[in-house]
Amino acid sequence: MNFASDNTAGVAPQVLEALSAANAGHAPSYGVDPLTLAVRDRIRELFEAPSAAVYLVGTGTAANALACGLLTEPWGAVFCHRNAHIEEDECGAPEFYTGGAKLVLVDGAHGRIDPAGLERAITHTGRAGVHNVQRGMLSVTNATEAGTVYQPEAVRELAGLAHRWGLPVHMDGARFANALATLGCTPAEATWKAGVDVLSLGGTKGGCMGVEAVVIFDPDRGWEFELMRKRGGHLFSKQRFLAAQMLVWLAGDLWLDLARHANAMAARLSEGIAAAPGAHLVHPTEANAVFAAFPREAHRRAQEAGAHYYLWPFDQSLKGPGEEPLAARLVCSWATTEAEIDAFLGHLQA
Amino acid sequence: MNFASDNTAGVAPQVLEALSAANAGHAPSYGVDPLTLAVRDRIRELFEAPSAAVYLVGTGTAANALACGLLTEPWGAVFCHRNAHIEEDECGAPEFYTGGAKLVLVDGAHGRIDPAGLERAITHTGRAGVHNVQRGMLSVTNATEAGTVYQPEAVRELAGLAHRWGLPVHMDGARFANALATLGCTPAEATWKAGVDVLSLGGTKGGCMGVEAVVIFDPDRGWEFELMRKRGGHLFSKQRFLAAQMLVWLAGDLWLDLARHANAMAARLSEGIAAAPGAHLVHPTEANAVFAAFPREAHRRAQEAGAHYYLWPFDQSLKGPGEEPLAARLVCSWATTEAEIDAFLGHLQA
Amino acid sequence: MNFASDNTAGVAPQVLEALSAANAGHAPSYGVDPLTLAVRDRIRELFEAPSAAVYLVGTGTAANALACGLLTEPWGAVFCHRNAHIEEDECGAPEFYTGGAKLVLVDGAHGRIDPAGLERAITHTGRAGVHNVQRGMLSVTNATEAGTVYQPEAVRELAGLAHRWGLPVHMDGARFANALATLGCTPAEATWKAGVDVLSLGGTKGGCMGVEAVVIFDPDRGWEFELMRKRGGHLFSKQRFLAAQMLVWLAGDLWLDLARHANAMAARLSEGIAAAPGAHLVHPTEANAVFAAFPREAHRRAQEAGAHYYLWPFDQSLKGPGEEPLAARLVCSWATTEAEIDAFLGHLQA
Amino acid sequence: MNFASDNTAGVAPQVLEALSAANAGHAPSYGVDPLTLAVRDRIRELFEAPSAAVYLVGTGTAANALACGLLTEPWGAVFCHRNAHIEEDECGAPEFYTGGAKLVLVDGAHGRIDPAGLERAITHTGRAGVHNVQRGMLSVTNATEAGTVYQPEAVRELAGLAHRWGLPVHMDGARFANALATLGCTPAEATWKAGVDVLSLGGTKGGCMGVEAVVIFDPDRGWEFELMRKRGGHLFSKQRFLAAQMLVWLAGDLWLDLARHANAMAARLSEGIAAAPGAHLVHPTEANAVFAAFPREAHRRAQEAGAHYYLWPFDQSLKGPGEEPLAARLVCSWATTEAEIDAFLGHLQA
Repeated sequence: MNFASDNTAGVAPQVLEALSAANAGHAPSYGVDPLTLAVRDRIRELFEAPSAAVYLVGTGTAANALACGLLTEPWGAVFCHRNAHIEEDECGAPEFYTGGAKLVLVDGAHGRIDPAGLERAITHTGRAGVHNVQRGMLSVTNATEAGTVYQPEAVRELAGLAHRWGLPVHMDGARFANALATLGCTPAEATWKAGVDVLSLGGTKGGCMGVEAVVIFDPDRGWEFELMRKRGGHLFSKQRFLAAQMLVWLAGDLWLDLARHANAMAARLSEGIAAAPGAHLVHPTEANAVFAAFPREAHRRAQEAGAHYYLWPFDQSLKGPGEEPLAARLVCSWATTEAEIDAFLGHLQA
Repeated sequence: MNFASDNTAGVAPQVLEALSAANAGHAPSYGVDPLTLAVRDRIRELFEAPSAAVYLVGTGTAANALACGLLTEPWGAVFCHRNAHIEEDECGAPEFYTGGAKLVLVDGAHGRIDPAGLERAITHTGRAGVHNVQRGMLSVTNATEAGTVYQPEAVRELAGLAHRWGLPVHMDGARFANALATLGCTPAEATWKAGVDVLSLGGTKGGCMGVEAVVIFDPDRGWEFELMRKRGGHLFSKQRFLAAQMLVWLAGDLWLDLARHANAMAARLSEGIAAAPGAHLVHPTEANAVFAAFPREAHRRAQEAGAHYYLWPFDQSLKGPGEEPLAARLVCSWATTEAEIDAFLGHLQA
Repeated sequence: MNFASDNTAGVAPQVLEALSAANAGHAPSYGVDPLTLAVRDRIRELFEAPSAAVYLVGTGTAANALACGLLTEPWGAVFCHRNAHIEEDECGAPEFYTGGAKLVLVDGAHGRIDPAGLERAITHTGRAGVHNVQRGMLSVTNATEAGTVYQPEAVRELAGLAHRWGLPVHMDGARFANALATLGCTPAEATWKAGVDVLSLGGTKGGCMGVEAVVIFDPDRGWEFELMRKRGGHLFSKQRFLAAQMLVWLAGDLWLDLARHANAMAARLSEGIAAAPGAHLVHPTEANAVFAAFPREAHRRAQEAGAHYYLWPFDQSLKGPGEEPLAARLVCSWATTEAEIDAFLGHLQA
Repeated sequence: MNFASDNTAGVAPQVLEALSAANAGHAPSYGVDPLTLAVRDRIRELFEAPSAAVYLVGTGTAANALACGLLTEPWGAVFCHRNAHIEEDECGAPEFYTGGAKLVLVDGAHGRIDPAGLERAITHTGRAGVHNVQRGMLSVTNATEAGTVYQPEAVRELAGLAHRWGLPVHMDGARFANALATLGCTPAEATWKAGVDVLSLGGTKGGCMGVEAVVIFDPDRGWEFELMRKRGGHLFSKQRFLAAQMLVWLAGDLWLDLARHANAMAARLSEGIAAAPGAHLVHPTEANAVFAAFPREAHRRAQEAGAHYYLWPFDQSLKGPGEEPLAARLVCSWATTEAEIDAFLGHLQA
């Protein structure tokens, strides 16, 4: 019953096998090996973007922060949701890689940026000429930090607004596979056709060991990105082992199959919690994470039985006698089983 | 016959097995998993440093640049050899992670810093108060970029000089295992007992997939390092897979056995080249890399037969009819075979 | 009728005279001249802080941004009011000088930080360990950007809260003289006795040509500040001319006399506007700036008669036929005259 | 007898008068005042560059570091002379403003970059693709730190070399007036006609109080510079007082007259020293600074008589009984008198 994060799961067996297979013989280092070229070509094919620049890094924070570094000047504003990973969970990595850009926070229900709020933020920023930071870029997250999903038209609305101000658009897709599994559209429809200029395509949470791709739909910026990646220490010498993971994951339907499984587990969990006494959902469950509140007593039972997850927001406490529901974040992964879900739900009911 | 780099080799089979073994079940993410704790403890034991802070990252550039970021202020000077990896091969990563420190280059034969030159550089830097950058830190590399090794007393001399000026000492140990295999001393004797404050301990070149440890002998600076690592995007979520690599590598003698093999291959290669007609060594061969010059015709034969390596320095050219010897760098690894060496030597002779 | 800013005024005649007097003969450059030492000593005396470190720079943005750079790490949060100058008017200079810290915005009526909101922000930040930016520092502004003033006890409450979390406290005192003229307390009571660790003491808006002092009540951090100032290009070679301005300004009561005059002019203006038909104050007038709303027609009459000031917020527009009141910021300075005020008020009345 | 620096002199009387004149009435702040526009136009006229972008700052370090920040990426190399002010005297300001670029040092006699050395440095840098820092920009200094002057054709050779590699060219002209007074050519011939893209035009050392202009011959980069200047805290609110200094200085021949005087004093001093017993020049005297060696005893006599100057290099010492000549740097300014020179020379002889 480990729902702490999709990061606590291991690696899909196919990924381990691919690493073994990749180990034969010598290979050029630093990303000119055949596997890296193959994963680049596979991503171009999948995204119907034959000239996209594709780069691999080892962590989601690196992917996002480097993308921001590419897309905004140091004096730029990065418009993002108040609870975006780049704002709340990266220890200022975007500020570091941009040379000190300012994240300007926009509200919006259930983790999705409110378009009117975005417009107000863009208008307000840069209104005083050289005295302000300047309008820099937009970053959206799909699936969101609240476990919801943007429809392509919602991305298109936000991206269109950004583009009207001349701002490029980044998508944090640490859980892009989960979003796509829900949407059922093509990768292109969910990204560049909706106005996304650069995508962080996450493999780690989806069953890889540690690999994320940065997909730059305008390849002219590729060399600059390569320099930033190297300078950040994110160019791996034995890069074939990053490539091998993502190649097997993307080669067929593995990535979507794993994501569909994680989403299905979350749906099962969500329905079960919603039906439990004294419980309710905090956000709609649209991907692989469930945000729900339930009584302290139920939390205690579940945790005593070995369930792992975080109270969300963090600053709640299970201590004390109160009975009011406390909210939690429960994340499912490719490795979550129905048995875990059902065991957990059983503890809620008791 | 791939001598391009120890990075072009694959992964030792024991490392792949350890990755498979590490995949069972869930594990806490972001470095609080049991394998990460175990590798920390093993390094403390190996280095006789029971309170050292130990952190894992994925690349050598990250390890070095983060170490510099920890040890110097932005207005500091990083004293290092003119051909140090941090100067020549990291695209300014140390400047990035330090916030703009200045690398002050010191000469010295065969990749080793000349103590008198270091003293001149330290004296000169900071002589003009607030107008100069300030004396910041010393970084030495063992084994060096020239394939040579510092004896512990040579490190102690340089480190002692640095410490007299109040400067901390970093060792770039991307090939520390190769140095240690040559030296035959203990890890402690080669590092903190000789005055090293922070060690980048490289696993990747030695047979791992992609893992380096930063060993901070003074643990008080650990938390600051953790923040810098996260902010740089180098905190891996599924960190057990970095730890598993390094743990099996260090658990017994594997790391030294692999390094001894690489060094032995380099010795065989070095002796063979030295005996070839028109050839000579450029640097003494003390670890796993051979720097040697031999006739253009011999280069052509070897390369036509499939040998991979770099002319060194890069700006030479095989083109043209000349017959003067051109220098090359030939690197052996845990995976190099005697057969490869002998085949290569055969082409030199012809 | 120039109320655009206290920056549009010239220089008090005493300051010009002091510049002439300072011009005699040679003087050591870079801040070791007698005038710089004298201004340091005068500030120590005025603030009853005999060991404070005192440094001069040319702009308020430099003073504030350097102070932030001194007080927080790159991964720190700078807690400040949503409308603080460091957030809205410095083009990201604090982010630049801190190496990418994050400004965390706190609300509060009339430009003053709400203590409960500050506590929430501090609690929220850093709750997730290494993943968040860390709690860094507090910056308060006195007089505020809304033309109001913090009482010493209000500063003490905010600073006490910050200190309980171990955070140092900066005061942006670009208009500290105006605040002090209102408060009637001693400089020490308004600053370090209320918990301020570093003060930006502004001279420029108060009648100098271009000089601000950074007063560091804990002198141990002085050398680090000197390096940051030099590295930022803010160490003036002919520094006696910065010192001469501030010395004459602070030597007797000149600074407070000029501030009292500016405040009195603002009070006269404020009372007059409040009494005008269809007008009302947006913020209480406690220093030298008036924030008030009045009918578009009155704006038009005043501006046609040559009045200069900004609509506030900027994104309003005088265009269009509407009659609803529009807000304005009107700033008085040492050079504002009663005649200007009365002429302006005359235009409001129609 | 103050030869410590041209910074220890005061301000030319015309400059003080201009400051008084500029003080009348209100003026728009932040650089849109009439005097700033006038100085921009005067510089465009003087340099025959009708569309140049012109910006004022308060210090030479700010001018140089901002120029570097404009002209190179963070991963770029700044090619400059080993003794350039940006390398030796700015505490890493260029590294700060560029986001961590690397200064690559080129040798050359008498403070002038050797063209062959520059070509080697450019060739060497960036030869290893993404692993190296990239070729970024060239910075030359005229007059040099050794008191010599580049002829336009010498600048053209270096700039041409840089341009062939696609690198922009900066000139540090802290003492540009002194160089021009020697050269007798037009400002355009000494700068953009010789290949200079951005000039730091120093006023402070030439008789102003504290003002330098950055002249960007390609105006397209102007807005970016404005943002960097503001973000660095170098946009002065009461900018008319910076403009007034430089306007009067440049309006007629004042700047060249003052420079000619300083150069003439240096020539007189240089000739006198060269004729003194046991003395010799270290560098030819071509502008306003004399580098000469003379016996310790002569140093002692001069210093006891009140002469101020620096031993050069700094790490010499007057202590001890030796009689070998020690080198010194003696700088003349607009305020140096023949009487001072002759008094000094008298002490050398005694």
